[in-house]
Amino acid sequence: MNLDNIRIVLVNTSHPGNIGGVARAMKNMGLSRLYLVAPRQYPDEQAEWRAASAMDILENAVVAETLEEAIGDCQFVVGTSARNRRIPWPLQNPRQCAQRMAQASSAEQVAVLFGREDRGLTNEELKVCNLHLNIPTSEAYSSLNLAMAVQIVCYELQMLSSPAGLPTGEDEEWDTPFSTRENMERFYVHLEQALTDIEFLDPVAPRQLMSRLRRLYGRVRLDEMELNILRGILTETQKWVDKARQKAD
Amino acid sequence: MNLDNIRIVLVNTSHPGNIGGVARAMKNMGLSRLYLVAPRQYPDEQAEWRAASAMDILENAVVAETLEEAIGDCQFVVGTSARNRRIPWPLQNPRQCAQRMAQASSAEQVAVLFGREDRGLTNEELKVCNLHLNIPTSEAYSSLNLAMAVQIVCYELQMLSSPAGLPTGEDEEWDTPFSTRENMERFYVHLEQALTDIEFLDPVAPRQLMSRLRRLYGRVRLDEMELNILRGILTETQKWVDKARQKAD
Repeated sequence: MNLDNIRIVLVNTSHPGNIGGVARAMKNMGLSRLYLVAPRQYPDEQAEWRAASAMDILENAVVAETLEEAIGDCQFVVGTSARNRRIPWPLQNPRQCAQRMAQASSAEQVAVLFGREDRGLTNEELKVCNLHLNIPTSEAYSSLNLAMAVQIVCYELQMLSSPAGLPTGEDEEWDTPFSTRENMERFYVHLEQALTDIEFLDPVAPRQLMSRLRRLYGRVRLDEMELNILRGILTETQKWVDKARQKAD
Repeated sequence: MNLDNIRIVLVNTSHPGNIGGVARAMKNMGLSRLYLVAPRQYPDEQAEWRAASAMDILENAVVAETLEEAIGDCQFVVGTSARNRRIPWPLQNPRQCAQRMAQASSAEQVAVLFGREDRGLTNEELKVCNLHLNIPTSEAYSSLNLAMAVQIVCYELQMLSSPAGLPTGEDEEWDTPFSTRENMERFYVHLEQALTDIEFLDPVAPRQLMSRLRRLYGRVRLDEMELNILRGILTETQKWVDKARQKAD
């Protein structure tokens, strides 16, 4: 996958603010190549303002007069489209499309076309595309803002470009090792003893108390520091019980 | 999955235009419940303009003075966060988070918090969250526009709402309701008091103790019965401290 081989092409955009929003959305997600086909009002202050720290994307944007000029050298062209087209076309969601684009981008020039704010791409424009991309929306309101649509597509590409797909691995970034089974068992013994000491647990009728606490702490996966804190609390509690009992003697 | 049980909470938003953009992003993706915590400038024309056909979302938005007011009745709270936090927290990408939220939303109230345009959520605000959400970005420019961030999260929820998208939920099989934010806060107050009573916590030098315990219990999501058990243990412990102190008098 090579994000530098993927260009975003805005066709006949009306509002310069949207162009700026697109530039920012692209840079946030690691894309850099913006093509503007016959923008209605550009360059413009609003574009610069919405671009924020993505001014470099705007400065390097290619302004073209025709769509052919913008995508002539591309091997793989994706067009964004609403659902209700008369002629059915291979229609994929952004996730599926991002995978296809990522594959193609290793060796080919890839373009994603976004149409006018009010009418999208024309049927003529959609016909030059290899694939149509549809962003799923609520039926109650399906008209996405242009920059938002670009953001979603670029986000799907970024999701693919982080190593191993998903960053997740909450475990790897944790600051303390998770506790071992042995230490967890020692903790449960200590917990049961302390609960007995404070007379919260009746050994004769323990009911489900320890089961519930095991489920709780087993679910969370304690790290070693947390385990030490909890055991410290138990030890401190037991001292107070001893103190109260000694006084009673 | 029930999108009506998922609310978007914007904390201390500066630019009313962003509030409008968020409303539109939500409606496009089938979400409807917007909460505004202490917005700087609202209501405002710019919000209405950017909301386009999502005026109903703005009209029904709940304006709250504090975060607690906005999420007090929620059982599952997600906070959006940059990567570099001092105490790591379970950090998931929007796709993983959306699955957790979708599962929880069948029976619970879910909130997703988005912070200030310039500084995000404070550490205090992040501490009330069960899960932290991080949107992957390019390292070169990681600061997403607020409405864009909301768009991505709502998009992931919409992707799940198409049939067959949703994995089965652990929550549905749980035997007891999960606790609300309000009850969790009461528990933390009680916990802090009890730890002070047993002199495990020094109010003068509390260090990171309560943060670590909040992280622990926030991560596990306590159910109401577990919460009652833990509070019962605290109450019992406090009685022994009283007993020991009375004897000392």
